[in-house]
Amino acid sequence: MPKKGLIERLDSGVVIGDGGFVFALEKRGYVKAGPWTPEATVENPEAVRQLHREFLRAGSDVMQTFTFYASDDKLQNRGNEAQKKYTGAMINQQACEIAREVANEGDALVAGGISQTPTYLNGLGKEAVQKEFEKQLKVFVDNKVDFMIAEYFEHVEEIVWAVESIKQKCPGMPIAANMCIGPEGDMHGVSAGECAVRMAKAGADVIGINCHFDPDTVLAALRLMKEALTKAGFKKHLMAQPLGFKTPDASKQGFIDLPEFPFGLEPRILTRWDCHRYAREAYDLGVRYIGACCGFEPYHVRAIAEELQKERGCLPTGSEKHGQWGDGLRQHTKPWVRARARRDYWENLKPASGRPYCASMSKPDEWGVTQGDAMLKQQAQKTTDEDLQKLYKK
Amino acid sequence: MPKKGLIERLDSGVVIGDGGFVFALEKRGYVKAGPWTPEATVENPEAVRQLHREFLRAGSDVMQTFTFYASDDKLQNRGNEAQKKYTGAMINQQACEIAREVANEGDALVAGGISQTPTYLNGLGKEAVQKEFEKQLKVFVDNKVDFMIAEYFEHVEEIVWAVESIKQKCPGMPIAANMCIGPEGDMHGVSAGECAVRMAKAGADVIGINCHFDPDTVLAALRLMKEALTKAGFKKHLMAQPLGFKTPDASKQGFIDLPEFPFGLEPRILTRWDCHRYAREAYDLGVRYIGACCGFEPYHVRAIAEELQKERGCLPTGSEKHGQWGDGLRQHTKPWVRARARRDYWENLKPASGRPYCASMSKPDEWGVTQGDAMLKQQAQKTTDEDLQKLYKK
Amino acid sequence: MPKKGLIERLDSGVVIGDGGFVFALEKRGYVKAGPWTPEATVENPEAVRQLHREFLRAGSDVMQTFTFYASDDKLQNRGNEAQKKYTGAMINQQACEIAREVANEGDALVAGGISQTPTYLNGLGKEAVQKEFEKQLKVFVDNKVDFMIAEYFEHVEEIVWAVESIKQKCPGMPIAANMCIGPEGDMHGVSAGECAVRMAKAGADVIGINCHFDPDTVLAALRLMKEALTKAGFKKHLMAQPLGFKTPDASKQGFIDLPEFPFGLEPRILTRWDCHRYAREAYDLGVRYIGACCGFEPYHVRAIAEELQKERGCLPTGSEKHGQWGDGLRQHTKPWVRARARRDYWENLKPASGRPYCASMSKPDEWGVTQGDAMLKQQAQKTTDEDLQKLYKK
Amino acid sequence: MPKKGLIERLDSGVVIGDGGFVFALEKRGYVKAGPWTPEATVENPEAVRQLHREFLRAGSDVMQTFTFYASDDKLQNRGNEAQKKYTGAMINQQACEIAREVANEGDALVAGGISQTPTYLNGLGKEAVQKEFEKQLKVFVDNKVDFMIAEYFEHVEEIVWAVESIKQKCPGMPIAANMCIGPEGDMHGVSAGECAVRMAKAGADVIGINCHFDPDTVLAALRLMKEALTKAGFKKHLMAQPLGFKTPDASKQGFIDLPEFPFGLEPRILTRWDCHRYAREAYDLGVRYIGACCGFEPYHVRAIAEELQKERGCLPTGSEKHGQWGDGLRQHTKPWVRARARRDYWENLKPASGRPYCASMSKPDEWGVTQGDAMLKQQAQKTTDEDLQKLYKK
Repeated sequence: MPKKGLIERLDSGVVIGDGGFVFALEKRGYVKAGPWTPEATVENPEAVRQLHREFLRAGSDVMQTFTFYASDDKLQNRGNEAQKKYTGAMINQQACEIAREVANEGDALVAGGISQTPTYLNGLGKEAVQKEFEKQLKVFVDNKVDFMIAEYFEHVEEIVWAVESIKQKCPGMPIAANMCIGPEGDMHGVSAGECAVRMAKAGADVIGINCHFDPDTVLAALRLMKEALTKAGFKKHLMAQPLGFKTPDASKQGFIDLPEFPFGLEPRILTRWDCHRYAREAYDLGVRYIGACCGFEPYHVRAIAEELQKERGCLPTGSEKHGQWGDGLRQHTKPWVRARARRDYWENLKPASGRPYCASMSKPDEWGVTQGDAMLKQQAQKTTDEDLQKLYKK
Repeated sequence: MPKKGLIERLDSGVVIGDGGFVFALEKRGYVKAGPWTPEATVENPEAVRQLHREFLRAGSDVMQTFTFYASDDKLQNRGNEAQKKYTGAMINQQACEIAREVANEGDALVAGGISQTPTYLNGLGKEAVQKEFEKQLKVFVDNKVDFMIAEYFEHVEEIVWAVESIKQKCPGMPIAANMCIGPEGDMHGVSAGECAVRMAKAGADVIGINCHFDPDTVLAALRLMKEALTKAGFKKHLMAQPLGFKTPDASKQGFIDLPEFPFGLEPRILTRWDCHRYAREAYDLGVRYIGACCGFEPYHVRAIAEELQKERGCLPTGSEKHGQWGDGLRQHTKPWVRARARRDYWENLKPASGRPYCASMSKPDEWGVTQGDAMLKQQAQKTTDEDLQKLYKK
Repeated sequence: MPKKGLIERLDSGVVIGDGGFVFALEKRGYVKAGPWTPEATVENPEAVRQLHREFLRAGSDVMQTFTFYASDDKLQNRGNEAQKKYTGAMINQQACEIAREVANEGDALVAGGISQTPTYLNGLGKEAVQKEFEKQLKVFVDNKVDFMIAEYFEHVEEIVWAVESIKQKCPGMPIAANMCIGPEGDMHGVSAGECAVRMAKAGADVIGINCHFDPDTVLAALRLMKEALTKAGFKKHLMAQPLGFKTPDASKQGFIDLPEFPFGLEPRILTRWDCHRYAREAYDLGVRYIGACCGFEPYHVRAIAEELQKERGCLPTGSEKHGQWGDGLRQHTKPWVRARARRDYWENLKPASGRPYCASMSKPDEWGVTQGDAMLKQQAQKTTDEDLQKLYKK
Repeated sequence: MPKKGLIERLDSGVVIGDGGFVFALEKRGYVKAGPWTPEATVENPEAVRQLHREFLRAGSDVMQTFTFYASDDKLQNRGNEAQKKYTGAMINQQACEIAREVANEGDALVAGGISQTPTYLNGLGKEAVQKEFEKQLKVFVDNKVDFMIAEYFEHVEEIVWAVESIKQKCPGMPIAANMCIGPEGDMHGVSAGECAVRMAKAGADVIGINCHFDPDTVLAALRLMKEALTKAGFKKHLMAQPLGFKTPDASKQGFIDLPEFPFGLEPRILTRWDCHRYAREAYDLGVRYIGACCGFEPYHVRAIAEELQKERGCLPTGSEKHGQWGDGLRQHTKPWVRARARRDYWENLKPASGRPYCASMSKPDEWGVTQGDAMLKQQAQKTTDEDLQKLYKK
């Protein structure tokens, strides 16, 4: 029996995405922070497979191929060693096989993905950018992924090109398009609502936001997108794949600007209860593709699935090891911990950081540069000490 | 060529432990919070194996068998379903095989482990407690683990019994003994220093502290132990396996008492830089077994290994995906993130929590009950609603 | 030589207001929190006079008569005992005499003041409300105050009535009109900009905001007012009299809604350096009447005057006891305190609260009731225990 | 009828001190931060008198002459201009007259005071130091103050000399001796307990601690003093005059070391409810002279008196303007504020700072220099720019 497709699922219920591969695998030792490229699919396929399995077990209905930033121009950016050994196609081929293998252990779909390119930042124009996309898309088509996600785009201009490429090269595949923007809109000053409308016009079937902001901020921006889409007469499914980090203090460019990015974000990690709230609020807003991005670990996704138990009609497999709302604590040795085995305790807890010398909020670095600024030009060479010193002094 | 043994390694250098299995596997969906028992070795061996590999890759010199709380009395405590399917021996056998398999992929040792028992809390006496230990020890002897760890004991009386059992049943095996106490000492009021001396007298070769407190607190307590051991004329190696959570506000019973335990601890998670500091301070105090407990993920252990690169003469395998002190950020797309590719940035960062409605510190639940109190008696039945309501009202 | 009038001063420079009498005198023991009425002018005139002198010395160009909430309907509200002994006219007469006495010790102007009334909350209509105003205005006219301030109005409808009354009863007196609103506008949903325009239309010469919010929020709202006034073709002077408390977390009704109001606001008190920044930002926005409200003590006003030294051409008398930007610390005994005698130290300091068990921000009580709701009807009787219990349960 | 003396009062009840003159008058514009000398008694006697009256009204049983740091060597320290105009004797004479005048408006006692000297810091020896004391004591004897307080001493050696001087020059006067130390003891490393014993041996009748630390820390140190006194066989009254600022993070030298001292301490200011708790805990520890130091304003002292209403048999005059435990809020206009008119609301409130970019705690400057170090030598000249720059660089 063939699996139900993405749109069919969204029309009739809710689809849960999977979590953040690059951050989770960085913590497990398989991805390098900085380049953030997915050569682990070739180098350590068992680690990638294991993480897929954990998300499947947590309730994910989609296995996203681990192909983030696998464009050839990115693989050779700023001294990344990955490109000496692998092409993007090699990485993506492995990613597709792993994702499909695990998807078939359950009822999950496989989604291919493309994201923003150094070529765009370097101002090389539409043709050059789409060429990068197309090299990647070929692998997804060959592997017959169930649908495509264009995600992590900061400029609406580039995601429109991406959607167009998918539309052309992957006929018949549903397209989900996600920008990594907040309520302030894209880096060139296009409003969040207008971004949504342009993605819809380009042909995206599912429209949303991923990465860069916490669930609260992502939903605030999605609300603007929803209003603009409605006003423009579009009826599209909405998609949210927020960070697993609290970012009330982030500025336009999201958590990248926060001084804690990427090695001091721990105090911002969501609790599972934050994820319950996120799932409910997303659902109430009408979002039907409720997913996750950097910072989301399997237990965070499980919390989404547990919150939506009624809507989905089931609990995820992983819940066999999780008492709902703390219920497992009934089995704890200490009586005062057993006393926490109740929903209102965890819903109302305001967790302390154990860091009295740290503030709650940070002032973001706001350099305000974006595509078009010379500072954002990319290069194949690794940043030198001299370059670094110039940057420190800014 | 046979591997060098534990004591030999400690005498000539530093040994890095592995991290916290129950917490890491709970987040991955394989361990249930509440009972915290390790039946995953049977149910999902590939998940346990993968975590071992990540710690090996991160620099761990020891693979601890995932046998925490696998005593038969614990497996059947308070409605734990594990005991319906498995005996402790079954779980431990699998744990030994997995640990040995991964240890042999590198140069790591395998350590068996026993911990405190419900039998002790129920006041059933030395013989009954030791019988629980001995059932577990048999598996470790049969599997020829390299050494034994008695860990997570809140009462020195019980750990002394444990060390005695190991001494008798595992002849020739080095013994490491770790209590989960802080500077205030054990739950019966025995000082930290006196606890250390009693462990030494009972025959432990390596003496230390695991779990319950953050590195700062564990090292403060180890300092007291070191002084007491020296004063009593013992020369023993010291061992630290602290939490990967900040707990400046914990009271005598550690993070168990904090209101965030176990489902709201995220804001307290250590950064990798916290682990660098921990490794250095532990080393400077003379601790030579520098390990980790609940909350430590592979990248935390890698940070210990990176801090001790000079002392160990090498970097761990996992560092191939980690630029030292943020160096990988030289390869980041954004110039202001590249500007963070330097040690002093990360050493001085005070990370914000993104939680302005949460305080820094919590008031612990201090019920002050310990072995001997009726409230701590354990039972096979799961806590009922009625029992729970009585507890809430306290 | 007659003193220069308000408008003349505003046209040619900057006017500094005085600080918050009710809060300062509450802390000194002369005003009761709850009713907040100014009977101290009769009961303890020397205390009122001393506070006036301190503000004069701090650089205030205006002595506001201490007549806040001195309408007869307020004096007898909810069991206030003041009305048994004094009429509003008696209190105000004394207030005028004291203010004039101190004003003449320097070059300050005297401003009379009226504020919102229980009569309005009780929905008794324009005529009844204006009758309350007119009883007060008579005293100000008799005493020839230099100008009038209508301040602390939450509903634009009522302040328009107030401005009209002043216009009619105090011919020739300049009128300053201040609402206690933030960027969200008045309690009936009128926008901040529209409020400003209506005040201008009613005849106010100086338009602004007092109380309820911190300087940042007040200036954000004033920016909206300025834009609306410009758009409507009005050229009016702007006035700011914000709180001396940080209120980033206040909702529409300001600090009244914060759980700390009024007896736990201490951690929110501005530093003198916060006041420097306020003065500069207000000036840069074009505000020329830069004053203060609840929470501002004399040293806060002095900081305004010191920041505007160049613009005003002088330092206030009180600066003889204050080294600029910490300069007085050069005379401190301890060398590390002397090291703080510099501007950048104090400008960049992020002061800690010493309260690790308290959060940074509070969730406001948002009952959302306003004029027109039965809950806001006032009465002469003190709230009974029974009434209170009903309120707690809400 | 003559007033009851200090010891008689302490034997039969509790004595409430007055609050912090230098800090309160700095905020009012009459004292210069840095030198902190009390020339306001001559320059602005009405301001000093008013503050005395407020404390009397708040419940203070003692009017301390405003003579802090009025030794001649201090008046001419580091460019203080006070010494060009006044001698210490002139300042103290005025201080005595004002204090007596206000004390006689109630039933308060007058206490003279001496404190630590630059002469001691300069290492000029016992004779030179006592000569400074004696010049001051003469005025107190001439004015027949009711008792003497030696306070604000960081070195027990110097306070012993002070007590000896008082004993010799002020025959018959009770002597209270207060060091400004915490549980870590004096700056030369003498323990808190030993300090207490030496003060007792020197002849002090009342022994305690003032300034430098918050109530919690002061009471912790007083507990050590009490134990040591008992052990040494002394029966002395205990005295507490803590700061009105929270200082959990201060190091040995107290709030002076905190980076917020003295111009950023606002977020640390105690609430009135903190003072209730302080009064109760001090009383329960057996402290009978319960006073206050820097940061305490009249309403803080009133809170002490209100907490001890039962013990003292009366409320202070100032409570006519203060409903107990928030009771005055029954008269507030807004219903949600009326709902706060109850004890448990205020006792349990954890007040937010409104400063999400600030941490809870600070790292103190710990230069660790003390009497004997060249850096602490004092001089008549003001610190030069060059000197300052050397200090910054430390």
